[in-house]
Parts: sequence; structure tokens; C-alpha cells
Amino acid sequence: MQERVTMTDVARAAGVSTATVSYVLSGKRPVAPATRTAVEAAITELGFTVNTAARSLRTGQSTLVALIVPDIANPFFAQLAAALQEELRGLGLHVIVCNTRADRREERALLAEAVQQRFAGVVITPFRLLPRDIEVLGRAGIPTVISADVPFGPVDLVTPDARTATRQALERVTAAKRRRIAMIAGPRDATGGDPRLELLRNLARQFGTSLPGDLVVRGEHTREAGAEGFARLMSRRYRPDAVFCANDMVAVGALDKANELGVGIPGEVALVGHDDASFASLVRPQLTTIRYPAEDVGRAAARLLKERLDGRSVHRTVRVKAEFLARDSA
Amino acid sequence: MQERVTMTDVARAAGVSTATVSYVLSGKRPVAPATRTAVEAAITELGFTVNTAARSLRTGQSTLVALIVPDIANPFFAQLAAALQEELRGLGLHVIVCNTRADRREERALLAEAVQQRFAGVVITPFRLLPRDIEVLGRAGIPTVISADVPFGPVDLVTPDARTATRQALERVTAAKRRRIAMIAGPRDATGGDPRLELLRNLARQFGTSLPGDLVVRGEHTREAGAEGFARLMSRRYRPDAVFCANDMVAVGALDKANELGVGIPGEVALVGHDDASFASLVRPQLTTIRYPAEDVGRAAARLLKERLDGRSVHRTVRVKAEFLARDSA
Repeated sequence: MQERVTMTDVARAAGVSTATVSYVLSGKRPVAPATRTAVEAAITELGFTVNTAARSLRTGQSTLVALIVPDIANPFFAQLAAALQEELRGLGLHVIVCNTRADRREERALLAEAVQQRFAGVVITPFRLLPRDIEVLGRAGIPTVISADVPFGPVDLVTPDARTATRQALERVTAAKRRRIAMIAGPRDATGGDPRLELLRNLARQFGTSLPGDLVVRGEHTREAGAEGFARLMSRRYRPDAVFCANDMVAVGALDKANELGVGIPGEVALVGHDDASFASLVRPQLTTIRYPAEDVGRAAARLLKERLDGRSVHRTVRVKAEFLARDSA
Repeated sequence: MQERVTMTDVARAAGVSTATVSYVLSGKRPVAPATRTAVEAAITELGFTVNTAARSLRTGQSTLVALIVPDIANPFFAQLAAALQEELRGLGLHVIVCNTRADRREERALLAEAVQQRFAGVVITPFRLLPRDIEVLGRAGIPTVISADVPFGPVDLVTPDARTATRQALERVTAAKRRRIAMIAGPRDATGGDPRLELLRNLARQFGTSLPGDLVVRGEHTREAGAEGFARLMSRRYRPDAVFCANDMVAVGALDKANELGVGIPGEVALVGHDDASFASLVRPQLTTIRYPAEDVGRAAARLLKERLDGRSVHRTVRVKAEFLARDSA
């Protein structure tokens, strides 16, 4: 390793105080543009990295925060990662993204890695993990935030409040006289069941309808599973006239299949996604979806992590409001 | 940490040989379905992870392979990451994705992290790094693969062969009597210049046309920069009738702006992307693009890494063939 350049070296080279260097790095206070440029030039010239500062947060620990997700190909998680990184940069922490492919063995192996590498923090969207699997992180003293639809043991949680948005989606669909509501839900063995399905089912009753068993199909949270699920629904004797999807990846798969089968969206079947992933407005028809703002989730997770690093010990839950986005598919 | 479960423990619990356990893990030889199920059940029950095996590859080293990319929101890199992970899983290695936002300071900080954490390998698409920045990895003995359009010092390289595909794109565009060819290229300070622009410029001459200076605009490899670049091109006195883009993110941004300005694609302007990112076939019109197959790039990078882990010391370059995909936008 090369010798470490310190913040004092940077301050001296730029002709400013170390406090000013710190403000430039953290963004916590405004710095005059000329001063900022001088500091950034010194940082580049000297090859300064903020690792030293971050390391002192938790001696001997890495500056890496692992974001462990079930599907790296889902842009929702890329957006979440970017927001998390943005918030943690001022602390000299780096976000790395780990893909579990919704596989419990992979999920557990990555938790073991996080412990062995003494990561500075873990943000995880569990898919098949059990709450007890997470305990290794707590025992190792690694700050942990769960991003999930349901609580996951005694640990910090960022979770959606999607009740109002789901009700609005049902309002729109039933106002168009659709009554045969279906869902392409997640797999039966996902941890915590399928809260999006349960919420939809509960609310559907208030609209005088229901989701009968044969209108609920299950699969992974992927485009392929969405196509397959939609095909199965279309083979039912009583075809649904509205299909809710576990997320937007699934909804895009359903759209693929609808095009293939010549099923009109939204003419014959209204389609509702979940998340508002980046491509939701790119597809045609544009996806009507229940927006779960990835940036807000990332920022909330970062705040919870920071509080842990600052010594907070009680567990907190942050609810992030979902929002119904009526576009063209429903 | 919990006590480590070994492969022998798994073999005993499943009633098979350790070689069979190893085949199930690596996928190197076929295993009867019933045997595979028994082994997988034992693995899950005992909570076995393959870290132990992978660690012995390079004693004291992490099982993490870092994929360092300029833009995690670009699905090209998610596809690359998934293919890399698929190939390396058999070795008990985990791929983590690190986002540099095309920022040289971030790129360097992540290289420093890779060294400090003793990563098992690094695959990197540099954006503003200089070849000498990479040398820290070599000094630390960390197997490194560069994925880039140009060589990057004495190190393993995966690089596109896009000459034929670019020529085919130009053929299609000029056959439609388009002569005012433009490009939304990368930023001027990107490492290695802009090989995609140079290739296009060289080939354009063979078609009796050229890319005049005012028809080359520059920006980051993002959707926002694509929109901005397209707007600038449309404000030229002699508007282009064909626009090539640095990648598909840029092309989608150009499409956004074309819709906003009411510019017909491909009627008024033909639009050609690069990469065939997952959304290229989702947008309307579907994106005509020069496909650079992310899966092949990931697999090639994995092979080069494996050979390094096995002791190969000479540098290798693998060229991955790009392919012209004529869809609807050009």
C-alpha cells in the first residue's frame, strides 16, 4: 500500500483549514466555488481518499456497506444503491451491491462474508432468509437495516406504506367496471409470505370483490415469471380483467406475454405494476404502477445506518409512502 | 463467528462422497437429481457455505470479486455482473458491484479498498482512471480484468470488436439516403478518448460522408446527457438526419427529447444505440443498436480471472464480437 495522504495534507496544499476540507467532503456546509475547486484539485493531485476518516468511525472495520438484494437486474435496486451511496459518501463509506438471486444459500453466504470482512454496515432486502439468519450481523456488531414489506425481527426497518396507493389502484380498476381481479404474486416460500397480495386481498373486499384462488398465480420476481404467470391467468376459464403484479419486472413480463398473445392492455386486461422502476415509463403502454420511491428508501436506510454508527441502540422503523401512478396500462 | 461446516460434514449428512458434493457445488459434472436434492438439503440444514474452499485458493484472501463500473443504473452492467457471478459461483466467489459514477476519485478509492480488503479479483470498466492507477492491484497481486474499448496497460482485457456491426449500421443509415451523421459521444476527459466515435468517423469516410465537428456533441453516458445532447443537435443550423449514441442510456435520453420536441424517430432522425441494454427492446420505437453482449463479456472476464487464479502470468486479450441489431429507430 502507498502511504496515506491525510486531510491535513490536503488542507495545506489547498491553503485552507482542515474544517473546510471536511465541509467539501461531507457537503454539510456551503463552501465558496473557488475554494471547493482548490480543495478538489488538491485531493486529486495528492490522491487523497477519505478512508482514514471513515475507518476511525469503527476501528479496524471496512469502509464498505453491503446492499444485499434479490435481483441486481431490477433497476429499483440500482436506484436504491445510488441514493444510499449519495448519503454515505460524506462518511467515506462505499456501497457495494451483492446479488442473491433470491437464493437462501447465497443470502446466507453473503451474510457470512459481511461478518468476516467486518463490513461497516449491511442493508438487505431478504427474500428467503429467516429472521434468525440475520442474527449473525447483530452478534458481530454490524449495523443492519432491513428493507422489506414486513418486520424482520428486532432490527432497523424501512418499509412501504402502500395502503392508500393500493386502494387508489383498486378504485381506478373497479371504476372501469372490472371485477375479476388477479395477481401475479411472489413465490409461496418467500419470507414473510406476500404482504402485497394480502393487502390487495383485504382491500378488494372493501370494493365488493375478491381474489379467488385460481386468479392468484405465483412465481419469482422476474420478467420471465411475469410472462409465465400472465399466460397461466389467460388460460383460466374465467379470465381476469385486471392483473396486479408483485413488481414492475413481473409486470413487464406480463406485457411481453400480452403482446405475444394479442391480449389488449388495457382494453381487455388492466395491468398494475409495483415500484415504478426506471423502465415503467419506457414501455408501451406506459405502466400504471404503485410507486415505491427507491431514492427515499435508500435515503431512509442511510439515515438509520448513520444513527447506528453514531451509537443509537433502540430499533427504529421508517415507513415510506407509496404513491399510485395512473399511466396507460390500467 | 459460528463454527465452519465443512464439505465432509455435508457429504456425511447426505450419504455421498465429498467429490459428489463438490460436483453439485461446481456444476462441473452431472449429478443425479435425487443425489443433488439430498446434497442441497444437507447444505441448507447444516448452513454450509463454500467460503472455506474458496479461501484455500489464495490463503488469507477474501472470496469477493469486485465489479467496478461507472453507472450501476445501466442494466448492461447488471447483466455483466449476473454472468460473472454465474461463472464464479462454482469457485465459492461472490461478485460485488461498486459504482464509481464515472468519478475518478471514487474509482481510485475503490481500488484502494480492493487492495485493503484483499479482494480475490477485480473486474473494472474504467472511465476516468489512468492506466497507472490500476498498478496498485498488480502490486498487491490481485487478479485484474479490464473491460474497456481500448487496451489499458499490461493487464487482461475484454474488449469489443464492433467494426463489422458499426459498418452495418452505417450501411443501413446511408442506404436510407441519410448523410448528415451525428454522434452523442462520451466526455472529452474520459480515459482512452472515445473509441466508438473514432471507429464511426473512420468508417463514415468509407461511405463518402463524415462527422463534422458541429455534429459531435459530448456528455456523460447517462439518459440526462442523451436528452441534452439531442437538444443541442436539433438546434444546429444543419440538423443531422442520423444520430449515433455512446450507449443505450444516452439513446433513451435522446428518444425522450425527440418525443418532447416532436421530432419523428426514425422519420426525421434515425437513432442508433450501443450495447442492447435490457430496455432497448422495451422503448417505442424499439431501439436499433449495436449489441455488445454483456453476458459474453461477463463470461470472458470470469474465464480470464479463473486462469489468473490458476497461475497464468502472461496477459491476455479477449475480443467479444458486437452485432448490429436493426429494430425500429433506424
